[in-house]
Amino acid sequence: MKSLTRYLVMHVPTRRGFVNLTPEVERVLAESGVREGLVLVNAMHITASVFINDDEGGLHHDYEAWLERLAPHDPVAQYRHNETGEDNADAHLKRQVMGREVVVAVTAGRLDFGPWEQIFYGEFDGRRKKRVLVKVIGE
Amino acid sequence: MKSLTRYLVMHVPTRRGFVNLTPEVERVLAESGVREGLVLVNAMHITASVFINDDEGGLHHDYEAWLERLAPHDPVAQYRHNETGEDNADAHLKRQVMGREVVVAVTAGRLDFGPWEQIFYGEFDGRRKKRVLVKVIGE
Amino acid sequence: MKSLTRYLVMHVPTRRGFVNLTPEVERVLAESGVREGLVLVNAMHITASVFINDDEGGLHHDYEAWLERLAPHDPVAQYRHNETGEDNADAHLKRQVMGREVVVAVTAGRLDFGPWEQIFYGEFDGRRKKRVLVKVIGE
Repeated sequence: MKSLTRYLVMHVPTRRGFVNLTPEVERVLAESGVREGLVLVNAMHITASVFINDDEGGLHHDYEAWLERLAPHDPVAQYRHNETGEDNADAHLKRQVMGREVVVAVTAGRLDFGPWEQIFYGEFDGRRKKRVLVKVIGE
Repeated sequence: MKSLTRYLVMHVPTRRGFVNLTPEVERVLAESGVREGLVLVNAMHITASVFINDDEGGLHHDYEAWLERLAPHDPVAQYRHNETGEDNADAHLKRQVMGREVVVAVTAGRLDFGPWEQIFYGEFDGRRKKRVLVKVIGE
Repeated sequence: MKSLTRYLVMHVPTRRGFVNLTPEVERVLAESGVREGLVLVNAMHITASVFINDDEGGLHHDYEAWLERLAPHDPVAQYRHNETGEDNADAHLKRQVMGREVVVAVTAGRLDFGPWEQIFYGEFDGRRKKRVLVKVIGE
């Protein structure tokens, strides 16, 4: 069994944003030499997500508005977590809706994707460095 | 390491619906000959889900009503994604709640499930062909 | 390829609650002897979750209140699933928001975690025994 682990450094300059990780995951996969196996891609921080969806700006706007409706940032005092001095309780909630990780099949040396699948990093408490883990296992 | 990849063709005739994939995943697992490992089952389309829950019609009705409340289809003009000519922005949101994929343990040649676990395809923008990927890895 | 499967018995005495599974998953990983690979941790019951987030009591209170707002327990008659004699339809919904499973990278014999990642069991219909599956694969 082969395996390779790489860490992607993320730095979203705004509180919230989406970043397409697909090209970087493809680079790690190529480096691994794995032809058949699995790739795990996960946020290493608990106020961020990794998910698969469409690379369409209107949809990302819709995600942003929808998540803010499901788990509003303000008023920050509505969340007990924020009594610790944080203001990011909403980010911990939003991340659960969007998910921590994706597992992608590797077939014949490629990410085995449908026509529109792209891997995204979802940041919900940005303006600082975070990391995404990419782990390839297989043969 | 053994691996086997199969694609299931889905065609839900209505906009939304749930399909039990468990028998087909069991068939792929049997074909693979894997005794210890993992199975990945994922939607290859970004307006559909694969998830594990109960095979109970009342519950599926509840999921349908609840998802429609969290991310309503109408009015379609409330979503910027629909300005592209689509009317399926809500399906992209519903899919995030229900998830893209499941990873299931294979133990002694079987899906290592609790008493009520069944694998479902959740369609949120049907009336056309889509695919589900099943990948088995192990020994 | 090495693999090891273990089942953790959960018994949350209240209807809902969160339990930190990280030490037990670390014990299973150590027992497996795997240095590079993946760990799958999943609820084997469909009214419970396994997820990764912060070990902070205020946040857990916020999750509880938020999930109850997204998918209220009462009135139980609002859910068709409860016509089967159950009163736990809301638990099936809450579990979808929080997720069934996590897949964690194993690197150099350790759970490859960011600074605050901890694995939790989320119980939404407790007061009885349930199980969590831990499966390690790798080398």
